[in-house]
Amino acid sequence: MNHDLPDLAAIREAHARIRPYIHRTPVLTCRTLDRLVDAELFFKCENLQRVGAFKYRGATNAVQSLDDESARRGVATHSSGNHAQALALAARTRGIPAYVVMPRTAPLVKKAAVAGYGAEIVPCEPTLQARERTLAEVVARTGAHFVHPYDDPRVIAGQGTAVVELLEDAGALDAVITPVGGGGLLSGTALAVAALAPATRVLAAEPAGADDAARSLAAGRLIPSCEPHTICDGLLTSLSERTFTAIRAHVSTIVTVSDDAVREAMRLVMERMKLVVEPSAVVGLAALLEKRQEVPGRRIGIVISGGNVDLGQLPWQPAR
Amino acid sequence: MNHDLPDLAAIREAHARIRPYIHRTPVLTCRTLDRLVDAELFFKCENLQRVGAFKYRGATNAVQSLDDESARRGVATHSSGNHAQALALAARTRGIPAYVVMPRTAPLVKKAAVAGYGAEIVPCEPTLQARERTLAEVVARTGAHFVHPYDDPRVIAGQGTAVVELLEDAGALDAVITPVGGGGLLSGTALAVAALAPATRVLAAEPAGADDAARSLAAGRLIPSCEPHTICDGLLTSLSERTFTAIRAHVSTIVTVSDDAVREAMRLVMERMKLVVEPSAVVGLAALLEKRQEVPGRRIGIVISGGNVDLGQLPWQPAR
Repeated sequence: MNHDLPDLAAIREAHARIRPYIHRTPVLTCRTLDRLVDAELFFKCENLQRVGAFKYRGATNAVQSLDDESARRGVATHSSGNHAQALALAARTRGIPAYVVMPRTAPLVKKAAVAGYGAEIVPCEPTLQARERTLAEVVARTGAHFVHPYDDPRVIAGQGTAVVELLEDAGALDAVITPVGGGGLLSGTALAVAALAPATRVLAAEPAGADDAARSLAAGRLIPSCEPHTICDGLLTSLSERTFTAIRAHVSTIVTVSDDAVREAMRLVMERMKLVVEPSAVVGLAALLEKRQEVPGRRIGIVISGGNVDLGQLPWQPAR
Repeated sequence: MNHDLPDLAAIREAHARIRPYIHRTPVLTCRTLDRLVDAELFFKCENLQRVGAFKYRGATNAVQSLDDESARRGVATHSSGNHAQALALAARTRGIPAYVVMPRTAPLVKKAAVAGYGAEIVPCEPTLQARERTLAEVVARTGAHFVHPYDDPRVIAGQGTAVVELLEDAGALDAVITPVGGGGLLSGTALAVAALAPATRVLAAEPAGADDAARSLAAGRLIPSCEPHTICDGLLTSLSERTFTAIRAHVSTIVTVSDDAVREAMRLVMERMKLVVEPSAVVGLAALLEKRQEVPGRRIGIVISGGNVDLGQLPWQPAR
């Protein structure tokens, strides 16, 4: 198997490649939250990225990396989450087709979002086997290029560009903390920070109900999630060998958080920072609020990964 | 009566004075909204300002303008809205007392917010007369300095700093549109733009149910609101002679919008831009969406004035 990982040069190239298409998202601060966690927090707001998630960086890098000949046949993926929307918009921006394999049971609102960005949805039965077979059929039929949600060095390089901007805007940081699901964002962040700011520690947070990354890091071998259960719908996936390789090399700590802590962190970010965030986006802040793990230093960067949440079904009842 | 208005020098001085205390809020863009209104929109996100509203600029300028001798006795105001929170935090930041006269009937959540910033709440009966008498008593008893929510040149100068940053970050604009209630934000914006970018037109939007500014501009004389009714709880107040003077001189158009258009604009901004906004904040966007008024040019700045909204009572049902 090929477990290539991008180096700093690849992340820099990705940044130059995607810059015309992405938002340079702001780095925001909040003194109320600083007081609560007794630190200085710098929030990199990828919920304000196009399609509402950092995933647009990696998808755009993958799509814009293709030569014209490959690009013409389009791109394909299987996802019912932010990567599907991101790939759909990245493809539309380049003027090429996108095929997204989604289970028939996926929520209508997610299908509508992907279709709204112009992708062709290819339905499949809701099993891993059906999903992979359907994707293989789509690729065989169309010649489309498969873009994995995270197990792809171009995707990882794209996700790594967010922390490059964070370091540029916030200055030196003692630590950076990101969510971890499949590990695309975390491995890209870890590789960029190791090269750009080796004194800055990289941590990650994940839901206790989907803690494959914490268990894998502790065991020193890949332990996939088994029936993950959490409100963090973006963090259900398990690491790949590729992302785990980068994480083992560069990530010091993976903290697990309860769904209750995630709800509280969401409420605080929406009420105090006026940002719409999805549950997965605030696991890093939740980890700091729970204080179950000492975080080194005072200047801490937090990547807010996305904001795609159903505002009619917020997972908490705001204080009145 | 003294109807002093700040000139550009006063706005520049205010900016220098408040810069250490305020957030430099980001200017964000959204291609989905650009397509909907067929223009290029530049959103100045004062919902991301401290206390969640532009009001912190004016309140901070007023508080930081006081000499030490006056400041020691504190500041006072009557308000149950964002100005009260803004003045409370501005006073706490300078380490001086703040007294806020609020009707006994004000929502608990608003009292808690003001008290949370350390102000002393002075209750009064819910009438204009009781409010003014109570404020006069507070000022007589404490020697506190009264800071009006908008009828004050230092407050107007502070509010004018938002558009200075917007012009710096967005570049040349064909038009700028702000909400108008008492006219502090609008007059500060109009005075700054007239001096800095005389080719840029200044427009305002207000709810049809509180349209004193539109009627006043049309009549050429001040016509106060009479029993205003709208979901835009920040825009119920009427212009003062002072703010009307600036508005008559520099504002080309005041558009009125329906509460339904405000609900739709809120939904779009929260779902597509991932920003928490209060109803008053989106009247400008609502005006563009309703297209009842031709807005000149393509590059349009919109001041998003605040984000203090009860997330448990959003005034619309999000699409599912």
